[in-house]
Amino acid sequence: MGRPPAIATLGELLVEFVREGRGGGHGEGGVYAGPFPSGAPAIFIDQAARAGARTAIAGAVGRDAFGAVVLGRLEAAGVDVSLVERDPALPTGIAFVSYDAAGAREFVYTIAASAAPRFPHGHEVAAAFLRMGVGVVHVTGSSLGDGGMRARLLATLDALEGRGVRLSFDPNLRPELMAEAAAGEAVRRLLGRAAFVLPSEADAAALFPHEPFEVWAPRLLGQGAEAVAFKRGAAGASLWVRGAAGPVHAPPLPVREADPTGAGDCFGGTLVARLVLGDAPEEALRLAAAAGALAVTRVGPMEGNSDLDALRRAAAGA
Amino acid sequence: MGRPPAIATLGELLVEFVREGRGGGHGEGGVYAGPFPSGAPAIFIDQAARAGARTAIAGAVGRDAFGAVVLGRLEAAGVDVSLVERDPALPTGIAFVSYDAAGAREFVYTIAASAAPRFPHGHEVAAAFLRMGVGVVHVTGSSLGDGGMRARLLATLDALEGRGVRLSFDPNLRPELMAEAAAGEAVRRLLGRAAFVLPSEADAAALFPHEPFEVWAPRLLGQGAEAVAFKRGAAGASLWVRGAAGPVHAPPLPVREADPTGAGDCFGGTLVARLVLGDAPEEALRLAAAAGALAVTRVGPMEGNSDLDALRRAAAGA
Repeated sequence: MGRPPAIATLGELLVEFVREGRGGGHGEGGVYAGPFPSGAPAIFIDQAARAGARTAIAGAVGRDAFGAVVLGRLEAAGVDVSLVERDPALPTGIAFVSYDAAGAREFVYTIAASAAPRFPHGHEVAAAFLRMGVGVVHVTGSSLGDGGMRARLLATLDALEGRGVRLSFDPNLRPELMAEAAAGEAVRRLLGRAAFVLPSEADAAALFPHEPFEVWAPRLLGQGAEAVAFKRGAAGASLWVRGAAGPVHAPPLPVREADPTGAGDCFGGTLVARLVLGDAPEEALRLAAAAGALAVTRVGPMEGNSDLDALRRAAAGA
Repeated sequence: MGRPPAIATLGELLVEFVREGRGGGHGEGGVYAGPFPSGAPAIFIDQAARAGARTAIAGAVGRDAFGAVVLGRLEAAGVDVSLVERDPALPTGIAFVSYDAAGAREFVYTIAASAAPRFPHGHEVAAAFLRMGVGVVHVTGSSLGDGGMRARLLATLDALEGRGVRLSFDPNLRPELMAEAAAGEAVRRLLGRAAFVLPSEADAAALFPHEPFEVWAPRLLGQGAEAVAFKRGAAGASLWVRGAAGPVHAPPLPVREADPTGAGDCFGGTLVARLVLGDAPEEALRLAAAAGALAVTRVGPMEGNSDLDALRRAAAGA
């Protein structure tokens, strides 16, 4: 048996600034921590690398201090960044996040006007992924709102069609980024093609209204998915794999939440990495739930990402 | 005698984030205060309004929380913002500033990829300024680095040529923004046309190398300038007006520096406003020096802007 396939992703590379305190919007002066390396695909792939997978990412940053922040972090985790462009003319994308009194997030993004959507063209990325031995490509819905990014991303997936590369898809629906109808259509299309499907509660409520996990998960498995996870935040997580009579569950880990951003991506990166590396579904789910729990304990979207030893210790303590 | 002419400006409207502490660059995690309303033209015109002038500004912001920050502040000061576009597709421009151990500034800008350069076209702005009774238009060199902004700005000035509108020019040379040779050419062109010339020590060292104020100021006056100021920061300021045998000087005010950004713009806004309103050169310079001194006492480029009463109290205490 050969080495496990590599996991790759593509999409927005960002820095993020996190507003301190709750209840203040971006429309008045405050205090922000940052720049933190961010972007849902970056968080996912950083965590997949830390969980033991061979990884790569395609995307673009500006030739500025913020681009160096993102690339430096991914390189430190061992992610192959040779497919990350350094745009000479555009700044690195920036996200500002604040939390209202109820904990709901409010974003200001510069993605569309930044380097982020200008990553290498689809066929180049697809060819490079195949050379690298990529067996799973992960896509997050947050990358589908920008028209230019969506087009490049779908072109890459089309170029990989029929080449034995499985799709991992986190719907990650962001109202701020998905104003266009074409974004919603892309979400439905990827949902129908994905081997790994990783929705949150909010995603499931939007995609499968009034249906329980026990209805939509087997339907997706019947349509070709291999593994369907359900991220329920503080209520834990579930995973249903093809051929199993029912789902396995992971209880929530008791953690103190400092910043929930990135938790879903850490869950997904760990789950896909550990399944690709051959863990049993129960074990992969336990480690993924631990990764999601640890992610929320630190301010900054990627600051709570964890190595495999830390995941195993946290999962054992749950 | 009619009412004094209004003062207008055009250029970049921004929000700014100021990194706390000294010595940390933008390439690592830190803490930033913001969003502060910013942009050199905005700081200038806000201070000119607070010093008593009728004022207007042309520019562009995004339809986001940051744009509202900038517009809200200018409206509160009484600046006419009817010529500020709210771009539906691009984000408000952002500046990140940090200070190294020696107090030198390092910037990350998103200006070129933001709404900031997309302000209304030259002839529209020129016609509106004339309807408003604008007698002085202020330009800062920081607006000349971006090609699109420079073109719109020069088109506005060309459309005002021969209409009795005087130019106020602050060279405000920013290496980060002025990579193109065309920016330097625009600086020299405006320097030759300006009635009010407002360089800093760094500007003078670049524009008039090895020459003292006593050489370059009378030369500019002989070429048509009406008032030439010299901002020497903690060493005070000088002003030489046409027809005078020599300059007047204002001593530095003893203040504790918290954030020097905006001091030069506050000096200029006050000086031009008070000269237009009929103050004697000595009095206008004293108030301008007070505005510059007060500006550095607060973190945030526009947070230390001051009303006329505060300027008079500070100048009296000097």
